[in-house]
Amino acid sequence: MAPRVLICSKIVWAHEEVKQMLGAIADVVYVDSPDRKAFLAGFGLGGKYEGTVGIYRENDSAEAIGKFDKELINGLPSSVRWIAHNGAGYDPVDVHACIAKGIYLSNTPGAVDDATATTALYLLLSTFRQYSIAERSLRSLTWKPKGLNSITHDISGKTLAILGLGGIGSRLAELVRPFPMRVIYHSRNRSKNAPSYCEYFADVEEMLKQADVLSVHVPLRDETIGLVGEKWIRTLKKGAIIINTARGKIIDEEAIIRALEDGHLGAVGLDVYPNEPEVNPRLLDFPNATLLPHMGTENQDTQKTMEVRALTNLRDFLTSGMGKDLVIEWKNSRAESKVKPSAKL
Amino acid sequence: MAPRVLICSKIVWAHEEVKQMLGAIADVVYVDSPDRKAFLAGFGLGGKYEGTVGIYRENDSAEAIGKFDKELINGLPSSVRWIAHNGAGYDPVDVHACIAKGIYLSNTPGAVDDATATTALYLLLSTFRQYSIAERSLRSLTWKPKGLNSITHDISGKTLAILGLGGIGSRLAELVRPFPMRVIYHSRNRSKNAPSYCEYFADVEEMLKQADVLSVHVPLRDETIGLVGEKWIRTLKKGAIIINTARGKIIDEEAIIRALEDGHLGAVGLDVYPNEPEVNPRLLDFPNATLLPHMGTENQDTQKTMEVRALTNLRDFLTSGMGKDLVIEWKNSRAESKVKPSAKL
Repeated sequence: MAPRVLICSKIVWAHEEVKQMLGAIADVVYVDSPDRKAFLAGFGLGGKYEGTVGIYRENDSAEAIGKFDKELINGLPSSVRWIAHNGAGYDPVDVHACIAKGIYLSNTPGAVDDATATTALYLLLSTFRQYSIAERSLRSLTWKPKGLNSITHDISGKTLAILGLGGIGSRLAELVRPFPMRVIYHSRNRSKNAPSYCEYFADVEEMLKQADVLSVHVPLRDETIGLVGEKWIRTLKKGAIIINTARGKIIDEEAIIRALEDGHLGAVGLDVYPNEPEVNPRLLDFPNATLLPHMGTENQDTQKTMEVRALTNLRDFLTSGMGKDLVIEWKNSRAESKVKPSAKL
Repeated sequence: MAPRVLICSKIVWAHEEVKQMLGAIADVVYVDSPDRKAFLAGFGLGGKYEGTVGIYRENDSAEAIGKFDKELINGLPSSVRWIAHNGAGYDPVDVHACIAKGIYLSNTPGAVDDATATTALYLLLSTFRQYSIAERSLRSLTWKPKGLNSITHDISGKTLAILGLGGIGSRLAELVRPFPMRVIYHSRNRSKNAPSYCEYFADVEEMLKQADVLSVHVPLRDETIGLVGEKWIRTLKKGAIIINTARGKIIDEEAIIRALEDGHLGAVGLDVYPNEPEVNPRLLDFPNATLLPHMGTENQDTQKTMEVRALTNLRDFLTSGMGKDLVIEWKNSRAESKVKPSAKL
């Protein structure tokens, strides 16, 4: 019998691809459980998910089941060997529980870079030029707010600081290139793939001092919660702009609000919030805030690409034992276990 | 006595530059007249504008005086030799009346290109990705509209048609280059300065058929009023997008509204309207419209550059008899009068 694959989130665009890529090599079943308990029971003897080897999921996964936290991961049977997550950020999946249990986890890097960086570019244009407040003014039939040009600036020649120069940050650096902007960045290490015009700052505060706009592109991990806090925000120049298309919890939202209240920040462009879909209503009070409801990759072209990329990881695991997009924690874990034997010699 | 220069619109940013550039070579006076009649009377014997040689103006010129139409131009004394208009579009100045009367007219090309093309880029991003409706949804506390991804698209790989590849259109072509987009254009003639990746279409309808988005960058003249009308709009693919940062009257607004109503157009991004600051309230009904209140060059960096460029034309006229940015109608007129004598030989 072909190995069983469980599609645990709705496939929206890649229906044909599911058939083409998995039809001949897998028994594809679709999730259909009212709650987490019933979901986990489904993997039992005679259950509809019995023998499942691979799981496809995304962050909008069946709400009834909830996050792939430690409890859920530990409740999966040992038959499950691969979780193909659709998305760049996989914080709703407990990667450490996966590693402990020997379940591989993949994400969809690359596929999201262009769409998410485009959202960051939009927020950058909107905040420098105050297009969002301008449109709200027009729609309330008051044409253009008075004095708007005194709080708006050209983008060309300004300095963009990128926190975390991975795929999305690098793509943003490319997209602002024609203005041009000066692009500076901080990562834990200098990026080998950084475009030549991106200047590395080992010292994050030195970078922040020179920025007209800071754009955040690090993943959400325990150590990045609240990473951009009071001190970093106050290290930025007065009037600087912050853009966040990564995860809401990476920035201390209260510190952002204080800095908007006292005018230290010139504007903010946010696509993400600490408790989505909740939005702190105090943010709505600031005319110089552009606020999007997590539009990062929200478009059919990119979302189809992401679905196909996640399915490709599942297919490659089934056919070769390994998918391309194993997450970094898993790669590090495998590298360590390879080192250990030789260290014993 | 130094030649008199009349500053006929408020200088917002370049106060120091007025002193530095004109202080030593001109007698600078500032407009102060309650209405057009008093304004024109000011040029009379003993009037405060008597003997004025050059005038600085922009479109927000003292409302009391109104447009520089034929009546106003003809009412100016023969001492006036140069009008330095601050802005790329000079449709509120009757250039033919200026030529007939021998008054040179300059605009500020180049200075506006980056800021206006940035506004077009913003509208392009907003319409392809539906960011504007997304922010309105968030601000009405409903997070993300359902099914939004089915009407949103990546920009990368799509085809941008530029109508009029002058300074602003060319700059837009540069700004979308990193995605990349395929860039096609139509102008009366193939542009000598077009970037190599821009494809020329002599036949405008052939261009429209291939466009995912049309961006309008032609000046307002008698022959461009209503240029983008029912036929051209219907020649675009179903679901195509129209962006206008040029002048409202270049597009037939009723045809746009019909095409939004029946779904022929996927979205529109408008920065300009036929009777600014009036906006047709029917436009507000379309969620897929991004509507800005003429934000084209609305930022202090660009507006200072524009003020300085207009003042530079005045200064160059005073010191050398000719400014750099003489408008195209004047250049053509001078070329014709130069040709005539030799044609007689």
